[in-house]
This record gives sequence, C-alpha cells and structure tokens, in this order.
Amino acid sequence: MKKERLVVIGGDAAGMSAASQAKRRRPELDIVVFERGPHVSYSACGIPYYIGGLVDSEQKLIVRTPEKFRERDGIDVRTMHEVEEIDAAGRKVRVRDLNSGKNAWEPYGQLLIATGAAPVCPDLPGADAVDICGVNTLESGLAIRRRLDKGGIERGVVVGGGYIGLEMAEALIRKGVEISLINRSAQVMATLDEDMGALVSQVLRDLGVTLYLEEELTAFETKAGKLTGIVTDKRTLPADLVILGLGVRPNTELAAAAGIPLGDKGAIRVNERMETGIAGIWAAGDCAESFHLVSRKPFYIALGTVANRHGRVAGINLGGGYATFPGVMGTAVTKICQLEIARTGLQEKELAKLGIEWVSAVIKSRTKAGYYPDAGDITVKLLAERGSGRLLGGQIVGAEGSAKRIDTLATALHAGFNVEEMINLDLGYAPPFSPVWDPVVIAAREVAKKL
Amino acid sequence: MKKERLVVIGGDAAGMSAASQAKRRRPELDIVVFERGPHVSYSACGIPYYIGGLVDSEQKLIVRTPEKFRERDGIDVRTMHEVEEIDAAGRKVRVRDLNSGKNAWEPYGQLLIATGAAPVCPDLPGADAVDICGVNTLESGLAIRRRLDKGGIERGVVVGGGYIGLEMAEALIRKGVEISLINRSAQVMATLDEDMGALVSQVLRDLGVTLYLEEELTAFETKAGKLTGIVTDKRTLPADLVILGLGVRPNTELAAAAGIPLGDKGAIRVNERMETGIAGIWAAGDCAESFHLVSRKPFYIALGTVANRHGRVAGINLGGGYATFPGVMGTAVTKICQLEIARTGLQEKELAKLGIEWVSAVIKSRTKAGYYPDAGDITVKLLAERGSGRLLGGQIVGAEGSAKRIDTLATALHAGFNVEEMINLDLGYAPPFSPVWDPVVIAAREVAKKL
Repeated sequence: MKKERLVVIGGDAAGMSAASQAKRRRPELDIVVFERGPHVSYSACGIPYYIGGLVDSEQKLIVRTPEKFRERDGIDVRTMHEVEEIDAAGRKVRVRDLNSGKNAWEPYGQLLIATGAAPVCPDLPGADAVDICGVNTLESGLAIRRRLDKGGIERGVVVGGGYIGLEMAEALIRKGVEISLINRSAQVMATLDEDMGALVSQVLRDLGVTLYLEEELTAFETKAGKLTGIVTDKRTLPADLVILGLGVRPNTELAAAAGIPLGDKGAIRVNERMETGIAGIWAAGDCAESFHLVSRKPFYIALGTVANRHGRVAGINLGGGYATFPGVMGTAVTKICQLEIARTGLQEKELAKLGIEWVSAVIKSRTKAGYYPDAGDITVKLLAERGSGRLLGGQIVGAEGSAKRIDTLATALHAGFNVEEMINLDLGYAPPFSPVWDPVVIAAREVAKKL
Repeated sequence: MKKERLVVIGGDAAGMSAASQAKRRRPELDIVVFERGPHVSYSACGIPYYIGGLVDSEQKLIVRTPEKFRERDGIDVRTMHEVEEIDAAGRKVRVRDLNSGKNAWEPYGQLLIATGAAPVCPDLPGADAVDICGVNTLESGLAIRRRLDKGGIERGVVVGGGYIGLEMAEALIRKGVEISLINRSAQVMATLDEDMGALVSQVLRDLGVTLYLEEELTAFETKAGKLTGIVTDKRTLPADLVILGLGVRPNTELAAAAGIPLGDKGAIRVNERMETGIAGIWAAGDCAESFHLVSRKPFYIALGTVANRHGRVAGINLGGGYATFPGVMGTAVTKICQLEIARTGLQEKELAKLGIEWVSAVIKSRTKAGYYPDAGDITVKLLAERGSGRLLGGQIVGAEGSAKRIDTLATALHAGFNVEEMINLDLGYAPPFSPVWDPVVIAAREVAKKL
C-alpha cells in the first residue's frame, strides 16, 4: 500500500505548525512542503526589531531551517518551489522549481494551503521605483536593513499608522532617521477607537514623528527610476526611504483559480476543522478566514498567533485527530518605543455597523501601586452591551506592563462575561504589579455605573 | 424621623470601601467608623516596600486621612476608638476612646465588622522581648524602619517563607542586612507546590539568604530583656532583628463574644451579600470568610484585593443596593528582588485532600520572543482535572513580566474552562511581550497531551 501523502503549500507559521503536528501524530505520513522563498519557519513579527537593530542577526529570527525539518522531523521541505496550479479533481499540484525553472505535477492525498498574505501595494504613479513594499518577508526585512546600514538614509516616510507603520517608525527612530507618517484617517491605529488612537498620535508627535493625518498617498516621486519622495492629496514630501504599512491581503489567487470558495475579504472560507469547501483541501494562516467570537461573523485577521493556532488545528485533523478552531477575538498588541498598545473584541465602528448598542468608559490609572517606584500611566477603554452589560471589547494604551493586561479582557470575552463578573474576578495584586483594583477592573466598575 | 445609622468597626480597606460605597449610594445615611489605631485607609501591602526604602515616606501609603473622609465624604471617622463589645440584641456597641480612656455605648441600625487580621505570634520562651510581631500595621512598619535607619542591624532572621517573609527578605537585602530564613516545610512559599517552591528557595540562596528548611522556631534568645537571637529545633542563630511571617489569623474575638457564627479558621461566616448569621450585622475583609470557587468550600484568605471587594459588596448592600460576592480563586502574586511569583486555584495538596484527581505539567519558556532583548525565563505549572481537562490551578515563577500572567489563568478558572479552551484563547502576541504561544498556553498544551 502506498503511503498517504500530505502536500503543504507555504512553509511559514501555519504550514510548518500543521506539518509538524500531523507528522508527530502520524509518523508514517509522507509530507512535502513547497515554499517559494528561500526560508521557512521564521518570525515575520520580529522583522521590524531586526531592522531597528534590537535583534542583531537575521539567523535569530529563523525558528528552524529546512534541513532541520528534513533531518529531525522527516518532513520534505522544498524551498524555492512555487505551486502554480491546483488540480482539485486530479488531486495534484503543478510545482515550479524556481532554481531550475522546471515544472512538475505532484500528487497529494490531502492538501493544505498556507500561502499567507501579501502587503497591499497601491498601483500609483511612480510605483515602479518602489522596490520594497511592506515588511512581511524576511527578504524584504534584510533589504531594508542593508539599505539603512549602508547609510545616507536621512528622511523616511511611513505610509499607514497601523501595526507595521508603528513598529517600523520605532525601528527608524532607533536608526536616527527623520520620519513623516501619512495616515488616511483622523488618528493612527484604526483598530482602536478615535479617542484611544489620539493618545497614540500624541506619543508619535512627542517622539518627533511628523504626522500627516487625513491624508492619502497619491503618487511616488522618482528621478531616473529612483524614489525621491511621495505625493499626498495635500503635499509633496522628500524621502530617501518609503515604508508602506497599508495592510495585507490574503494570497488566494491559486485557491480561487482552483474553485475553492472564498469569503468577503478574499480569504479562504474554512469550517471549524480548517477544511475548505473542497474535500481533501485544507487552509490555515493568513490566507484563511476566521470566525469572530463576539460578532459571530466570518472575520479576516492576519496574525502570527492566529496562523499558529490555525496550523495546529489543521495539523491535528490531518494527523488523524480531531480539533476545532472556535475563532478569534481580534486581540492584538504592539508598542512604539515606551508606549504599549492593545485591543480585543469589537470597537465602536464595528458595533455601530452590527447595530449593537453599547456603553463605554475610559479610565486612567497606574500600572503599579501609585506609591511604588516607576508606576506608569495606563488608559483602559471598555465597551459593554447596553442593558446586559456583556463585555464587547477593550482597548489599552500605556506604559510598560500595560499591553498584556488585554489577555484578561480577551479571556473574559471568551467566557462571555458581563461587567459585574469582570469586577468580581480574583486577579493578582501586589504593589509592584498593580493598584489594588486592576486598571481593567476599574474600567469595568466605571462601565457598570453607566448601564 | 431619625437618620439611619451605620457603624463600621475598623477603618482599613474593607471598612472604608464599604463606608464610601454606602455613603455614595445613600448620602442621608449617618456613618461612624471606629478605628483603634491612629490611621485609616492605608496600604498595608506597601509596608515592606516602605521598610526597604523603595517608598520614601509613610505618607505615600496613606490613601486618605480621617479628615478627608470627614470633610469630603461626610463619614465620621474616629481613630483611637476601640469597640470592646457588641450588643446584638440592643443594636449597640461599647466603644472606648483610647485617648481619654472613656467608655460609651453607641447605637447602630446596621453594623459592619471589618476588624481585619492579626499576625500569628507564637507564645514561646523569650517572646516578651519581641516587640514587633509581623508587619501588618503601619505602626509596626514605621517601628522596623526606624530601627533599621538607626543602624547597627547586621543580622536579621526571617521566620516563615511566605509572602511577608519574602517581601521582608527583599527589604532587608536592600538595607544590607545579612539574612537567615527559617521555614517549617521543605520549601518556601507553601502556597506553591514543592517543585515550584524549590525554584524560589534556590533564588533566595542565590541572593545570599541562608535557608534553614524543615526547621521550627522554638524560642527567642534574650539578654537583659533584649532580643539577641532565635532558637530552632536544630540550632541557635544570633539576630539583631527578627521578622515573623507566620501568617495571620482573623480578629474575631469581638464577633465571637457577640455570638456571631464563625467558620473553621475562626473567620466570620457570611452569606454572598456579606451579611453574618445575625441580622443587621455584616462582615468584610480579613476578618471574614470567603468561598473558594474551585473547591466550592468556605475558604479563608487575608488579602487587600479580597478585602476591597468584600467592602464594595457590603457597601452596596448597606447603601440599599444589591450585590453579591461570588468568591475567590486564591490568586496571589509577589516578588523577591527580580523573581516574580504567582499562583491561583488549587495546589496539589489541596486537590489530594479534596479527592480530586489531576494531571499537571511544568513548562519552561520565555517572557518575550526568544530573540527579543531581555527576554527572561518563566516557569508555568498548570493543573487540570483528570479526564475532563477542567482547569484547577496554576503557578508561575519567573523574570519580570511573569506574575501578572496569572490573571489569564484566574479568569479562565472563573470561566470554568478546560485546557482545550485555554489553548484556543486569543491572547496578545508581539515579540516584545510574549513568545507566539504564550507560556500559559504552552503549559495548557502540555497538560492536554497527558489527559
């Protein structure tokens, strides 16, 4: 009897977690991973810190090499191999060896699509001169760092005030680059409500970043094919380096061409076990859709944690086990220099769209007991359903020790708690860690007063 | 019509939160607080940090003065007034003015007992020479700091390796005192399992503390009425200063004399609204019992957070509202120098006693992404019910950023989650804050493998 074969397209977080998980459960499984780039299994989230110099070698970002996967795990990882076509009826994929240029059909018993996401690159005048778009591959990170290390980069423009925009702003600050940040909406961090985003905008200004809010990128300025600046609907800014942080979109052209059903945002629709609409084809990671546990609707989010959890569930199922992925809360954390930022659940604009009525409170507290040295400021916003008091979402902006408090809110959201249940949580308290009422509970108490 | 009168016995966390809460809800209520000490509403948990010099003035520990309560809140706070008798049938208390020595009967409509707890002081030979027992009042803290500031304290003995013992060891290390620590059981921190306690014992040794484990204090050595050392069942140790951290017991002599029913540990038994077995008499804080939400049994714990939450619930009810206190998880956090320690739920010895069978895992991970600068070690132990996988408890020991992760576990315990639900939590991830799988989730994954 021929060994069953699992083919994985894409060798990053979701693909490699799934492959490892499946292999551990069914060692007899023949697993081949096709990855079009030169690396597998690296931390894309670490790239901004590599660029900023906090991580000294790109080797540190690589969790495991293709050789390790082959030798230690018995997983056949083929880098520089791009899958160009899926034949779902024939259960095979057409693969191009990017080194030799050769094409071959490879059969599969089960197929996992883990093709990830790609940064949004606007098709604007002069875009040809922009050779680096986004910071989501190790190669793009290496290229930006090389350019910075070569010197001569004085003025940088960051387009987009989201997670990548902020993390790259920090990296450029560390490298002594003068930064302008262009942002389409009235405040940076559109995944926060405007009042919380305003706190982040202010800190960016305090850090010396020149903010251009409610401005849109319209073109790139070039000279002899080289980038010299950017143009918005309001002004022209000279730039030696442009970083685009305009979000990502799922890499699903391959899946779409094979007739695999996609969701609204173009991500692959999957069931709770991570199987697509076509039997024997699974999807995981930044190319796949999730389910939002508060809105109870399909939701697209491209994040390392989600990709790893998708991969784990797909891998257990592909390895003959049974696991389901219940969904996400939209939890995300980041920082810009000393300022920590976190969010979970739904924000005001999402609630308004869903027709959910809410009550909210914004409170200011401290990360430690007020009298304890180095206690820092923390602002917490909490949103709860009008009437029921059911938690709907939370946002945190503050000093060191602020961001991971979002985990308490995310866990309470998973539990479906209301604000009174939140107030009664038995959380850890000692002066070096928290005021006697944790800031997230103070926020719950304020919301409770308004219900 | 005469105004209704609320009498509160004890002006610390529970008493003052309840008084403030009740007054806000019913401004017409006549509230009198009798406090036998000179201070009200201070942070007892901050005392070790004041002694160690991290908090420079005792004024910083005082949340609010009696005058502020009188003027701003309209609460009649009488310090240096000790309640000596409760006449439950006559709805009155006998109060002694400690300054004048005068006695008077004061009537009440509702009575709140918030008499707190007192450190356990063993009645051993030489005990008369020990003028400071425990560190739970501001006066005792001031006395120790004065003694340290006067100089000449070279050798200190800390008896008891629990929260107070560890926090006082840190304070004495800061003051350059050579420390011996006597501990009855085989490891310090008896609220952790032995394997986790062993990590703390090792760090104490690394900090230069001489540990005497499985030793018991049997006497104090004195010379001309002055303390010169301590005696255990194994040796004699010279000492200029002895700190007793032998736990606390509830101050309930007054309540017991009035016929108010007590629980096993001598704490006042209350219902979910914090009312005692006698109508019109309520209790809150370190003198009152709680309910343990995992064991589903009455539980005694003396902690600032619990006292504040007791006080809030009692105050809402006394103010004409309705609130219940569902119970506690036994969550507690502390630190000794750089090492953070946290626990929640039930530990192995409690589970064994209850006849609950469990599966556990201990994992080592990092507080941040492995490649991120200053990522520190963290060890997480998780206990879950055999078969069902229901979470039962968790313990954390590690570097900065470790302890407050207990909140995620405590919240998951409140929700009654099993390990699979724990694995699917959407927690915050970015390299400066966590590995891609948070350490508490890595622990859940390990437990899941053993179920």
